[in-house]
Amino acid sequence: MSLLYEGKAKRVFNTEQEGVLRIEYKDEVTAGNGAKKDSMSGKGRLNNLITSKIFSILKQKGVESHFVEQISETEQLVRSVEIFPLEVVVRNVAAGSICKRLGFEKGHQFEQPLLELFYKKDELNDPLITDDHVALLNIATEEQLSTIKEQALNVNRVLSELMDDMNLILVDYKIEFGITEDGNILLADEISPDTCRIWDKETKENFDKDVYREDTGSLIDTYETFYKKLEEL
Amino acid sequence: MSLLYEGKAKRVFNTEQEGVLRIEYKDEVTAGNGAKKDSMSGKGRLNNLITSKIFSILKQKGVESHFVEQISETEQLVRSVEIFPLEVVVRNVAAGSICKRLGFEKGHQFEQPLLELFYKKDELNDPLITDDHVALLNIATEEQLSTIKEQALNVNRVLSELMDDMNLILVDYKIEFGITEDGNILLADEISPDTCRIWDKETKENFDKDVYREDTGSLIDTYETFYKKLEEL
Repeated sequence: MSLLYEGKAKRVFNTEQEGVLRIEYKDEVTAGNGAKKDSMSGKGRLNNLITSKIFSILKQKGVESHFVEQISETEQLVRSVEIFPLEVVVRNVAAGSICKRLGFEKGHQFEQPLLELFYKKDELNDPLITDDHVALLNIATEEQLSTIKEQALNVNRVLSELMDDMNLILVDYKIEFGITEDGNILLADEISPDTCRIWDKETKENFDKDVYREDTGSLIDTYETFYKKLEEL
Repeated sequence: MSLLYEGKAKRVFNTEQEGVLRIEYKDEVTAGNGAKKDSMSGKGRLNNLITSKIFSILKQKGVESHFVEQISETEQLVRSVEIFPLEVVVRNVAAGSICKRLGFEKGHQFEQPLLELFYKKDELNDPLITDDHVALLNIATEEQLSTIKEQALNVNRVLSELMDDMNLILVDYKIEFGITEDGNILLADEISPDTCRIWDKETKENFDKDVYREDTGSLIDTYETFYKKLEEL
């Protein structure tokens, strides 16, 4: 079936089933908005397996998403949604861009989860935006944004607990949302070590893409270890 | 009396009067967080005269500020307040940083005034922040921020009307707020062509610091012309 869209880490195809798309996870890995780029055999498989597993767990815990089913090691079916051009970031602990941007020390524990919105627009470098900007740029209505924020924090509750059970800390993550033809807002895209920052509770060792961003270890080994922990739950 | 603080464009002194400070406007002009810097004879006088006049008009129209009285060509007395480390920017028309940051075309008319908050912190380059960041960084309480926003939009109503009477457009401006010992939130700092973007209604000619930022004319002549228009009201 025809290719609808190709992103940095995924390809999206039409299927014969109305309203259902097929996502193929690629082996490409990028960082810094594409500034650093590599191909790593097995990476697409791992992110597909991990995302499928996490979306399934979220569903069991009452958080719906676009995920339908995993159909191969590197592919999954999802409901067709129109993606809001919005990166929703939830932070429990300070790390990454917020340290440089606002001067927080890495590892600073936020009293409550901090939600940040970024305008998904490569040519503008995905800038931080406020609720007022979301309205101004016609990204989402006030009501839609409110639903998105609520769901993002629901994801946080479920995912943080899950990571805690794995002896890990959910430091932060980026999620995206889409809207179905009948106006339902659904969690979409992926949830994987590509889109989360995850630390070992004791050693603070990374189980995420920072090992690639910062060249501190093998991305494939790290993701494989994370996937095994997830499977053992 | 002793110098309390010296900024890029002003010096602040104690006075013999409890709770009253003296501000001396300097001839220094800077742009790009100090990247461009010059001294221009007469600039301090003009900004002191303009700010004094604008704060007086705002008071007549019901918007209080820290301003007490102008005491010389380059000096004014103000109430002592603790300044919130917050740059409150109100935009009626897109110009300057928002064009680059969010892709708006220069001159784009916003449907309603857009309020943006920046964390006043030179070493971080005054980053854009959200309401959640304001709370997180202990910059202001939710209630204080709400008062600040309300006052910022009141200033917009009065100033926009004033500019309109002068055949000018109030494109955007940056204001700051402080809190008195007894907890009153007051408009503070200055309101001048250094802190506003003002265009001629027909020609869109600048009556503000952009003539210096963009090297398109004499800053002193521009501010003098603006001051004359203000005096003629």
